[in-house]
Amino acid sequence: MRGLDRAALTRLAAEIRAALVAATARCGGHLGSNLGVVELTIALHRVADSPADPVLFDIGHQAYVHKMLTGRAAGFRRLRAAGGLSGYPARAESAHDWLESSHASAAPAVALGLARALRGRTPDATVYCVLGDGALTGGMALEALNVAAAEDPPPNLVLVLNDNGRSYAPTVGAVPARLAEVAAALGIGYAGPVDGHDIAAVEAALAAARDAGGLRLVHARTVKGRGHAPALADAAEAMHTVAPADPGAPAEPAETWTAVFGDWAEAAAARDPRVHAVTAAMAGPCGLAGFAERHPGRLHDVGIAEQAALGLAAGLSLGGARPVVAMYSTFLQRGMDQLLMDLALTARPALLAVDRAGVTGADGPSHNGAWDLVLAAATPGLRAAAPRDGADLRRALDEALAAPGPALVRYPKGPVPEPIPARAALPGAGGVEVLLGDPGAAEVLLIGIGALAGEALAAGRRLAAEGRAVAVLHPRWVLPTPPELVAVCAAAPATVTVEDGLARGGAGAALAAGIATRRPGAAVACLGLPTAFLDQGGRGPILAAHGLDAAGIAARARALIDAARAGRR
Amino acid sequence: MRGLDRAALTRLAAEIRAALVAATARCGGHLGSNLGVVELTIALHRVADSPADPVLFDIGHQAYVHKMLTGRAAGFRRLRAAGGLSGYPARAESAHDWLESSHASAAPAVALGLARALRGRTPDATVYCVLGDGALTGGMALEALNVAAAEDPPPNLVLVLNDNGRSYAPTVGAVPARLAEVAAALGIGYAGPVDGHDIAAVEAALAAARDAGGLRLVHARTVKGRGHAPALADAAEAMHTVAPADPGAPAEPAETWTAVFGDWAEAAAARDPRVHAVTAAMAGPCGLAGFAERHPGRLHDVGIAEQAALGLAAGLSLGGARPVVAMYSTFLQRGMDQLLMDLALTARPALLAVDRAGVTGADGPSHNGAWDLVLAAATPGLRAAAPRDGADLRRALDEALAAPGPALVRYPKGPVPEPIPARAALPGAGGVEVLLGDPGAAEVLLIGIGALAGEALAAGRRLAAEGRAVAVLHPRWVLPTPPELVAVCAAAPATVTVEDGLARGGAGAALAAGIATRRPGAAVACLGLPTAFLDQGGRGPILAAHGLDAAGIAARARALIDAARAGRR
Repeated sequence: MRGLDRAALTRLAAEIRAALVAATARCGGHLGSNLGVVELTIALHRVADSPADPVLFDIGHQAYVHKMLTGRAAGFRRLRAAGGLSGYPARAESAHDWLESSHASAAPAVALGLARALRGRTPDATVYCVLGDGALTGGMALEALNVAAAEDPPPNLVLVLNDNGRSYAPTVGAVPARLAEVAAALGIGYAGPVDGHDIAAVEAALAAARDAGGLRLVHARTVKGRGHAPALADAAEAMHTVAPADPGAPAEPAETWTAVFGDWAEAAAARDPRVHAVTAAMAGPCGLAGFAERHPGRLHDVGIAEQAALGLAAGLSLGGARPVVAMYSTFLQRGMDQLLMDLALTARPALLAVDRAGVTGADGPSHNGAWDLVLAAATPGLRAAAPRDGADLRRALDEALAAPGPALVRYPKGPVPEPIPARAALPGAGGVEVLLGDPGAAEVLLIGIGALAGEALAAGRRLAAEGRAVAVLHPRWVLPTPPELVAVCAAAPATVTVEDGLARGGAGAALAAGIATRRPGAAVACLGLPTAFLDQGGRGPILAAHGLDAAGIAARARALIDAARAGRR
Repeated sequence: MRGLDRAALTRLAAEIRAALVAATARCGGHLGSNLGVVELTIALHRVADSPADPVLFDIGHQAYVHKMLTGRAAGFRRLRAAGGLSGYPARAESAHDWLESSHASAAPAVALGLARALRGRTPDATVYCVLGDGALTGGMALEALNVAAAEDPPPNLVLVLNDNGRSYAPTVGAVPARLAEVAAALGIGYAGPVDGHDIAAVEAALAAARDAGGLRLVHARTVKGRGHAPALADAAEAMHTVAPADPGAPAEPAETWTAVFGDWAEAAAARDPRVHAVTAAMAGPCGLAGFAERHPGRLHDVGIAEQAALGLAAGLSLGGARPVVAMYSTFLQRGMDQLLMDLALTARPALLAVDRAGVTGADGPSHNGAWDLVLAAATPGLRAAAPRDGADLRRALDEALAAPGPALVRYPKGPVPEPIPARAALPGAGGVEVLLGDPGAAEVLLIGIGALAGEALAAGRRLAAEGRAVAVLHPRWVLPTPPELVAVCAAAPATVTVEDGLARGGAGAALAAGIATRRPGAAVACLGLPTAFLDQGGRGPILAAHGLDAAGIAARARALIDAARAGRR
């Protein structure tokens, strides 16, 4: 690529764009951001001596072009598919990928550590770190800049700002808006803004930064979706992500969990002026576009800053408002201390709407929402609901908003299922509903948590068809563990819990602990995800591979019944 | 206080200083920082109409003067004692305390949320937020500033910077060093620096900021330890914290867990040039003072920035170094996403030395290290050790440093116990040692985790003296759960795990899950802390209150043996 002339580079850029559009149409994926960094990435690889010079991409979904330029163009036929090319940098794929980067704002600190480590080994190496303007709204990036800017001797670190003015939504805040001034204030060498679609201009700026040494910030202005008319026409998100083409898709798409939440939030705010919404740069993806339009003064977008989102929510609540914080499960991990110290310790009302909970699939190991119930179970006083269908989600949100302290409601990606009716409810305040069978007469109880209630019910029907006495229960609220559920399970011969999250430390484990205290030696199996990073693939196949489909649940129930019988003999 | 003249205010300041010195000499606590904010807090309360104007203190340990000025001077007789005055703001104590603030950098986001909520209710209210210069090294504070500075209309929020040039150690980074420039770059109204010990000057600056409205930063320069010769003479920490006077204390203080780690780290770095240490502004308190002196080029202080600390460690490791990150357990919560995404997902060697694990006591609910084992158990591939004595800690650190991936070693505050010898070890690679009895012949196994191994052993001796067949085991590595430990426990009639952390979701629960998979219906009880915020008090009494002393452990073991027998009949 270094030998190509300007005309050839222009042709290369066009070929890459065509390949990006084709690959994401086939496999789905992040289109807009990658269209925006075609020229920038070409220039970067002409300047950097990768992999000796590490090239890191913050929020690695903007690394598709990098992958194409480092020998992986053919792999885009199976982008994001099981066994195929990752949608993020992946060290197993290439020596050019130094970091499994995916969550925003993290790469600058890693790059700084890398620069410090390489100083003693390959002192001529330069570390390059591409980051979006949204990354500068995240505290972890600012922490790294604070330290790097004061370092003596300075690290050989070139920060390449891909400034398209957007996070998902337009980027918020004073730091990205006044970047040249902030860099000057901190004493960071700054170049730009340069036209990020002018390969020669970006290349010259990067080469100058490299040659100058030390900490440099090259500010490139780019256009998200550049060179692809449909992306540019998508004013809201510039085709941030694209779903794979599906010739069999229905004309009317199914209602999603996200949309149910969004409609509910908009209506709740209309009913109650105390309701505010808080988002970390994800209003649209979390279903809050309607809220933003109808109640703009009550939508608080803090940028890609989950810590501040939770802290701000605590402040809103202390001031008498009723905050509703919407975020993806995988990003809640960034706010564990704030969940504990700012929300749970103050114990004021706040609703956490946790979207994309459980297996998300194609985004790979970093984006599964496997941890939220573990974090919730470890948070004192936090109520948590895991609804089973759209109506149940609406009901849980209503109850959570009315709760006297923090409450979390979690739901997965994708369409809501057909309504799953309850046949009865256990006596008690915990909201435990019976989906199948008679809990008092069952040889095994299946506890279907959240979106896996449907699979638990299907497993229960299989067992019932085999003549086994089975009951399927759905605890609408899983934390704190409903006492009436503990009592029923402790009296049953065997209990199987099923959840779309870590098997260890989650809602099922909390129930199992309650049962063990009430009746030591009760037979309980907690089904869920292993404590492992899951390979990418479809949600359904991943759940099945981990025994979380009807067949897998039924098999574990049979085994537990047999083991419990053997233990009693 | 508003009616006092200058001479009377000076006398008041002197009285407060004497009270601070007396209270901390009696009860222990944070002295240096409070001596530094006497005049600043007096001025603040003359300007603010508290509690209608909320006054928040980031890292709330600098709120002692505020407490004295709001009717709680008498309470300092029982500062930090069980049932006594909290060392942090506490809403239950006073309407003047709006937030249970304790962890750094969080208050600005809460203050911003509060300002937004109050805008619609009491539009004339101004929110005041006192923060140390170290707070500006923490990402959450910078996230809040980024948003607040761009807000339109601006929030009525006065940030009062108590700049004493220190976090614990001298404050690092470019933001605190160039504050006026940064504020100007962000468009934040800035006043200062003013002499923080000149009441009239601070008062004038605060009043001007309040009257101007909007977002203001008043920069006050203060001296930590001001007005108290011994504190000023303490160059290292200006008497950051003071231990209560103890007339019976031995002349030679006992060796602490922290000191064992610090000595080990210094020696490890001398042996291996790849060893680097990473700290989030806590080198001294974490035992790294010697390391800093002897290997300054390999000590990385990122400020009060746990996220960046873990990210930087990941980068060091990717570059071939062997990072050792030392932090308090309670602050590890701030890096959960980085633990998962930057360290566990890259799976490169990194040692996390987690100090102050378990019950810490006097610092109250926000500072107990109750969560680290839950977070560790939820982290794929992370090894975790919980040593039982000083020699065991050294051995665990050696093994952790040599591990092929991330490894965590946790230990409590305070002195190491007398050595606890092992009588034997289980066959296998997991490092499970037998402290008492014959595991194959026992009716109950006690699994003593970490610093509670000694209590488990004492409980075992009580049970043995009663004629019960008991064995006490100490798993030196608790995560992943040693398979040989699972096998032995699954074969035993009853197992009791004991840990100094949450009973639910920790190391004992992971063992219980392994046992339940191998033998459904096995009798297992997991002892530990409840999922609750613990009231302040001494470590020993708190552990005993939760059944984690020898008597409590023995009682639970007896009950489990009886229940298991009843279940088998």
